[in-house]
Amino acid sequence: MGAIGGFYGGRLAKAGREVHFLSHSDYQFVLQNGLKIDSPDGNFHLPHINVYQNSKDMPKTDVIIVGLKTVKNRDVLPELLRPIVHKDSTVVLIQNGIGLEDDLQAIYPGLHIVAGLAFICSVKNAPGHIHHQDFGSINLGNYSCPKEQFAILLQDFLDAGLQAAEVPYLEARWRKAVWNMPFNGMTVALNTSTDKLLKNPATRQLIYDQMMEVIGAANALGVDTLTSAFADKMMQMTDEMVPYSPSMKIDYDYHRPMEIYYLYSRPIAEAKKVGFDMPKLAMLEAELHFLQK
Amino acid sequence: MGAIGGFYGGRLAKAGREVHFLSHSDYQFVLQNGLKIDSPDGNFHLPHINVYQNSKDMPKTDVIIVGLKTVKNRDVLPELLRPIVHKDSTVVLIQNGIGLEDDLQAIYPGLHIVAGLAFICSVKNAPGHIHHQDFGSINLGNYSCPKEQFAILLQDFLDAGLQAAEVPYLEARWRKAVWNMPFNGMTVALNTSTDKLLKNPATRQLIYDQMMEVIGAANALGVDTLTSAFADKMMQMTDEMVPYSPSMKIDYDYHRPMEIYYLYSRPIAEAKKVGFDMPKLAMLEAELHFLQK
Repeated sequence: MGAIGGFYGGRLAKAGREVHFLSHSDYQFVLQNGLKIDSPDGNFHLPHINVYQNSKDMPKTDVIIVGLKTVKNRDVLPELLRPIVHKDSTVVLIQNGIGLEDDLQAIYPGLHIVAGLAFICSVKNAPGHIHHQDFGSINLGNYSCPKEQFAILLQDFLDAGLQAAEVPYLEARWRKAVWNMPFNGMTVALNTSTDKLLKNPATRQLIYDQMMEVIGAANALGVDTLTSAFADKMMQMTDEMVPYSPSMKIDYDYHRPMEIYYLYSRPIAEAKKVGFDMPKLAMLEAELHFLQK
Repeated sequence: MGAIGGFYGGRLAKAGREVHFLSHSDYQFVLQNGLKIDSPDGNFHLPHINVYQNSKDMPKTDVIIVGLKTVKNRDVLPELLRPIVHKDSTVVLIQNGIGLEDDLQAIYPGLHIVAGLAFICSVKNAPGHIHHQDFGSINLGNYSCPKEQFAILLQDFLDAGLQAAEVPYLEARWRKAVWNMPFNGMTVALNTSTDKLLKNPATRQLIYDQMMEVIGAANALGVDTLTSAFADKMMQMTDEMVPYSPSMKIDYDYHRPMEIYYLYSRPIAEAKKVGFDMPKLAMLEAELHFLQK
């Protein structure tokens, strides 16, 4: 259980839903002490939660929220899901990247999959202790879920007091990539933060060019609602943000594997399939592979 | 006087030519101790050389060899030349990059300019002490020198026992850029050496792609003798070289200004003028500007 699964799962449990948590390193602590969430929406403590060390011990569930790093999507996730999915389960992938849903669908044909795009600042400070700092809204993009089931899922989030909304799946994924692809990798490649990249005129232009590569790719793949106006907006939003280390920079600093595949290789490959090149992001991908070592 | 001017000037002086050296930091030492060159071609010592601290004190000369870092070409070089050029002087620019000759010609119309492409490993170990490690051949590209004068210049180098040859000016400049543009910047951007870049499959492909951008630019500018075969050759040559830190990496490590303008900005701009994009090298240029700070 990380900062994402812990937060959304915790809020759903607090709202009275039956939630089962999978937790590796925190298992023993959480079993004894439960889950604590500090939040501007109000702190709360769930003294007893259903927690498991292995998904084999978990019951089959209707909704499975995945907050895993995508570096585990290809090797670990399919096996982890096997004991807990039934034929009508919905899996919500609260993860970043492009192609996640296609890959999971290929392994589980017919599985109900929803893309979860979380806008949240949340960290796990200590075992079983999550600090929700700011925001928390979640956009849900329906990939392969029957309408009625999707509506129930959305209502679950709303009932938990969360801002939740339905968004068009593919557009939402690419929209998030417009910010994610430039800033995640560039803060690693140049060992810096978002504000410094924007203060230097050369890297400011580069970040903008990279955003336009993402928008060009999205357009080539049929997402025609993204234009340069959105890049302008993302630049301005980032100018107004506090200096920020994207998740890939944090992974790199802590010597954890970086999400190169779903954040870079896959979107670049998807664009290439329809004849669209992303040379600057492809170069960034290569630099990240080198730095990952 | 650096490792380039010291080596070629020293060899010409040893061969009996009248050579005048400009030397800033080494002036006092060289005035008293002369110039020492250790070389696989034979060590030698010139106990008394003509050395100056300021070009204003130097005589007007027929041939001026420039081994300056190109970061000084726009601000310093024109004034430095003013006291020593006469109307028939030939200036040999033993420097890396694209556009050097055009820029100097714009300031000194009618000046006889020759591009010098040195293939040499040479370092200055101590004041007045140059260690020539390997190679030493020089290709001369005639930019704006009358034929007879160019022939004399070439003969001067040959008389000094150096391997010297005439090469087509523009082709030679771009040919050298095929290796220089990828490796100089990438060793800085990823804080590494040539061998590690080639060992990692992702950066190996990136280096090759960047070489092909240089070849594409050269082709677009009318240099039609460069093909992918030359990139293949450069890859193989670098595979066989000892791990190497290009000059820009050394400048970066010693916190000296990097030659970003003539190695990157200028060739990229020249290519753009004829409609050819170099996206991966443009990205590298931006990263270098950021790292230069």
